[in-house]
This record gives sequence, structure tokens and C-alpha cells, in this order.
Amino acid sequence: MRHLSPFTRHPRESVAALGEVRLIAAIRGWLGDTSPRSPFGIGDDCAVLPSAPGAGLVTVDPVIHGRHFDDSVPPEAVGAKLLKRNLSDIAAMGGRPRAAVLAVTLDARVRIRWLERFYRGLAAAARKHGVSIVGGDVAEAPEILAASLTLIGSAAGARILTRRGARPGDWIYVTGELGASRASGHHHAFTPRLAEGAWLASRAEVRSMMDISDGLAKDLAALTPTRATPELVEKSLPLRKGASTRSALTEGEDYELVFAVASRADRGALESAWRRRFSRVRLSCIGRFRAIGRPRPGAPTLPPLHGYEHFR
Amino acid sequence: MRHLSPFTRHPRESVAALGEVRLIAAIRGWLGDTSPRSPFGIGDDCAVLPSAPGAGLVTVDPVIHGRHFDDSVPPEAVGAKLLKRNLSDIAAMGGRPRAAVLAVTLDARVRIRWLERFYRGLAAAARKHGVSIVGGDVAEAPEILAASLTLIGSAAGARILTRRGARPGDWIYVTGELGASRASGHHHAFTPRLAEGAWLASRAEVRSMMDISDGLAKDLAALTPTRATPELVEKSLPLRKGASTRSALTEGEDYELVFAVASRADRGALESAWRRRFSRVRLSCIGRFRAIGRPRPGAPTLPPLHGYEHFR
Repeated sequence: MRHLSPFTRHPRESVAALGEVRLIAAIRGWLGDTSPRSPFGIGDDCAVLPSAPGAGLVTVDPVIHGRHFDDSVPPEAVGAKLLKRNLSDIAAMGGRPRAAVLAVTLDARVRIRWLERFYRGLAAAARKHGVSIVGGDVAEAPEILAASLTLIGSAAGARILTRRGARPGDWIYVTGELGASRASGHHHAFTPRLAEGAWLASRAEVRSMMDISDGLAKDLAALTPTRATPELVEKSLPLRKGASTRSALTEGEDYELVFAVASRADRGALESAWRRRFSRVRLSCIGRFRAIGRPRPGAPTLPPLHGYEHFR
Repeated sequence: MRHLSPFTRHPRESVAALGEVRLIAAIRGWLGDTSPRSPFGIGDDCAVLPSAPGAGLVTVDPVIHGRHFDDSVPPEAVGAKLLKRNLSDIAAMGGRPRAAVLAVTLDARVRIRWLERFYRGLAAAARKHGVSIVGGDVAEAPEILAASLTLIGSAAGARILTRRGARPGDWIYVTGELGASRASGHHHAFTPRLAEGAWLASRAEVRSMMDISDGLAKDLAALTPTRATPELVEKSLPLRKGASTRSALTEGEDYELVFAVASRADRGALESAWRRRFSRVRLSCIGRFRAIGRPRPGAPTLPPLHGYEHFR
């Protein structure tokens, strides 16, 4: 498959040929109906959000050329992934997405056609998930192609689920499958677990939740209660096709949900309600949070593994 | 004055020496009390905003090394300016700021000490204006030092002021002084006009408002009603010390407010109320929006001037 390099040597193909005013007009066209009319969208000092009930949720994540994508990735997939990474964070709180603002930094030699396809991919993902792109900024800087998206949402139901709340003895569950995300293309093709996250936040037996982005081995630490340690059962890990245990624990970019279920919960009821609601998405109990100092005789242990650490 | 270069050749002084986990812990320390406890701040998939009455406002602006600042700028000033640029956008709607998220992209050779001073400058400005830094992202990418801040606010009073609403015949006002922003250091030292913007939004005779960032000549176009043209009186332009008319119209980075006052308004009442409330901030009537096709005999005209256009 042949993709577009984001950079061009032909001035007529570059954003420099458009200039700022026509570039922003073009972006509004590419975003189409996902960009509401000002002041509820692009075109004023701030975007205006109609008031929403309940608590607000905010998250921000970037995509950077040379880091999160290269020339082999279709620009539509870059735009869609930028939104979906943030949607996964909203899903992990049991939230519903509402609106996004986008800060793009780019070299003047960036190809207009690349940018168009990037925005169209973003818009298609936004349309699918009911997100409005309400504002943004475009800045020029040499040798850079990067975009940072801030997503605003609200609680889908009566409560949000944070990373805190699990207790020693609670069961550890994950949605979907883990590992081999890059090799399989899952890191672009994934669907953020918005409906699943909202449903889990409505279940009283679910105590805390997060999404898996840097790898379960690293991310699970944030969900682990103090004076407890996660005890995983290796054979219960839902491996993606072609994935090793190590990849499932450390590779990251799974964008699945990991959550804690109260130790005394009726797990059978939870699991059968899940299957009725989400018949096509696996649900796996992969272990428990074990109180420190109380090893279970004969419990399987995994080698010490670490997820993706930035700046290393 | 000797400032810190953001980049270091000494690995022990660089963020690579910290690694991600310690870097984020350090950032929380640098932000201090402007960073609320999770889930209302850094540390979960999303930050949670307590619900606020009325419409929400969202804006985003970046600072990029080599573009918006260089090694001659103290890092504290870079951090403060990043927030203040966004505060000026909230002020321009008649809003009150509430919370911010910050996406930072940096080379692993960025100096820890530079970053600390940047965050401390940001935190000091946030404290002064009552903004909480509720979340963010830190990503690594070669040769880059950039930060993008998304600021969330709400209407300070009963209404917000957009860029639309001026009519032919309306008077054009500006706050403060214009021009020579870079030479005078104003572009770093300015105070965003938050109190002024909120007060102006409460005045019925004020019809529309925006802030001046790219230069009055360019920005005023967005405030100008269709079938009208701005007619400025050159000698009424409030020039900063050392500023030429050209600089006042085209240089930008003024971060003052420009707004339209209804043609039949009692301007004397507005101006004396302003002086009672904001005795230290100049207020200038600099012209009117004239209906196209109705030139006033003998009206002064300014040469065609343009503000700062990106990608040119």
C-alpha cells in the first residue's frame, strides 16, 4: 500500500500555498458537519459549549510524526487514532464524549492533501462517536507535524469510575484481547469502549476502572490498592492472535478497559449481563488483588514485567 | 541577563535522567496547589471538573520553541505567557477561567531545570488568575519543545460576547495601548483583561468583542459587520511608548480588547463608568463601522495594512 508522505518539496502542494486564512477555511470544509457554527465552533476567541448536566471530564493526548506515526500510516488513520486515544480515556471514566479542540503544529512544507485526509479521518471518527470539533489552533514551526486533541465529556450516567476504589480481594477483569497491537494493526483499528465503559460505570459491583494504553503490567499499578498486589493467572489472559504473554502485558496500545469487581459480587450475574449486552466483546477475569503479606499457597506468579515508559 | 537554554548536553541535567514516572511527580510538585488532587486533577484517565452553571468556554493555544520563544526568554515567562494568551481569549468572551490541561512535547535532552522554571511560571500565573491545572500529557519527540494549553471557562455573568453583533454605525473601542509589544516586553508582561472583559459583557451597549493578537488591522475584520468597513481615526489610536501607527495596527501580541458600542449609546456614561471601575487602564474610541457606500466626506483613511499572517 502506498501512502502519502506528509512533507512535499513542491510549494504548490504545501500549506504555504494556502496561507492561514484559506487553510482555516479548508479545515472547516474538511471537518464538515462535525464543526458546528460559531460561537459553538471554530471562529471566535473561544468555542461555546452548551451547558451539560453533571460533572465534566477533560483529557488531552497528542500524535506526533516520528513518534506516534510515520509515513507508512494513512493520514485518515492518524486523525482517527488521535480522537480514539482520547475517547478511550473518556470510556475509562464511564463518560460520554461531547466536544474537542485541536492544536496542530506543522512545517509550512506539509502537504495540503495529507492534511485534508488527516482532518477527514478525524471528522469521520468524530461523526461516528457524536463528537463536535469546536475549535483549535494551527501554528507553524519547522520540521514538526504534530496535533494535540483535548476532549471534553460528561458522565454518561449517575457516577464516574476513577482509578481509585479497588480493595484487596477484588477481581480483575479486562475487556477484549491484549497484545500484538502494532503487528495486528489493532492500534489504529480499535474501537474505543465507550458503550462498555458507560455500562460498567452503572454496575455497583465495579469499583474502579482505567484503559490500557502503556501495557497492563504498567497500567495495572495505578488500579492496585495500597497494601495489595495484583495476582494474575497467566492462562486467563485473553491473548490477541499472534500475541505472547509478554506482549499482552507490556506492549501497550490495547485501548481495552481493565476494572476491579468487588470480591463478594455475583460474578456470574455480571458476566451473563455482559454477554447479553456485548455479545461480541470478550470479558475475562484475569486475577485478583491480593493483600500483601497473604500469599495464596501455590499461586502462579508472573515474572516482573514493565510497560512502555517514556523518556527511557 | 543570562537565561537557560532549554537543551542540555549533560545527560544528568536532562529529563531523560528522570524518566516518565519521576518527571510527572516532579511536574505535580512544580505546579503545587494549582494542581488539584485526583480525580479533580492529574492522575486519572480524565480530569473531573465540578459542574458549573451556564455555558462553557474552551480555547487552545500553543507555545513552540523557535517560534513563540527562544533561548533569550526566561522559562517562567514562557509558562506564564502560555496561560495568559489563553486567558486573553476567555477575557474576550466575557468569561471567567476555571481549569486547564497541558500537552507538552519535548526532546529527551530538555533541561530539567528549564522545565521546572517553565512549570513554576505557569503555576504562578494560574494561581494569580484562579485557574486549576487539572491534567495533561507529556510526550517525547526529537528536536521539539512545545506546549499546548487548553483552557476551560464559563460566562462570568449573564451573557457572553462573541465577535458577531456589531452594526454599521457602531463605535470601535480598544482597551490599553497598542504597538511595540515585542520591543517593550509587553508580549510577556501583559495582564489579560479578564475583569475588563467581564464588565464589558455586562454592559448592554457593548455588542461584540475580541482580543487583539495578530494586529488590529487583521483582527478587526472579524468584528466588522457585513456591508460595513472600519473607519479609524489615526490620532485616536492609543500608541504604546515607542510605537508607530503601523506597529499599532500590524504588529500584534497586544492582548487588548477591541469592542463595538451601539451607535446610539450614551458614550459619556460608558466612559465615566469605565474610569470609576478601571482607573488605570486607558479606554479609547478609535473610530466607527461605516456602512459601505456611505463614505463620510473628508473622513481620514488609513493605508491598507495587514496583521500577522501565519504560513506566509
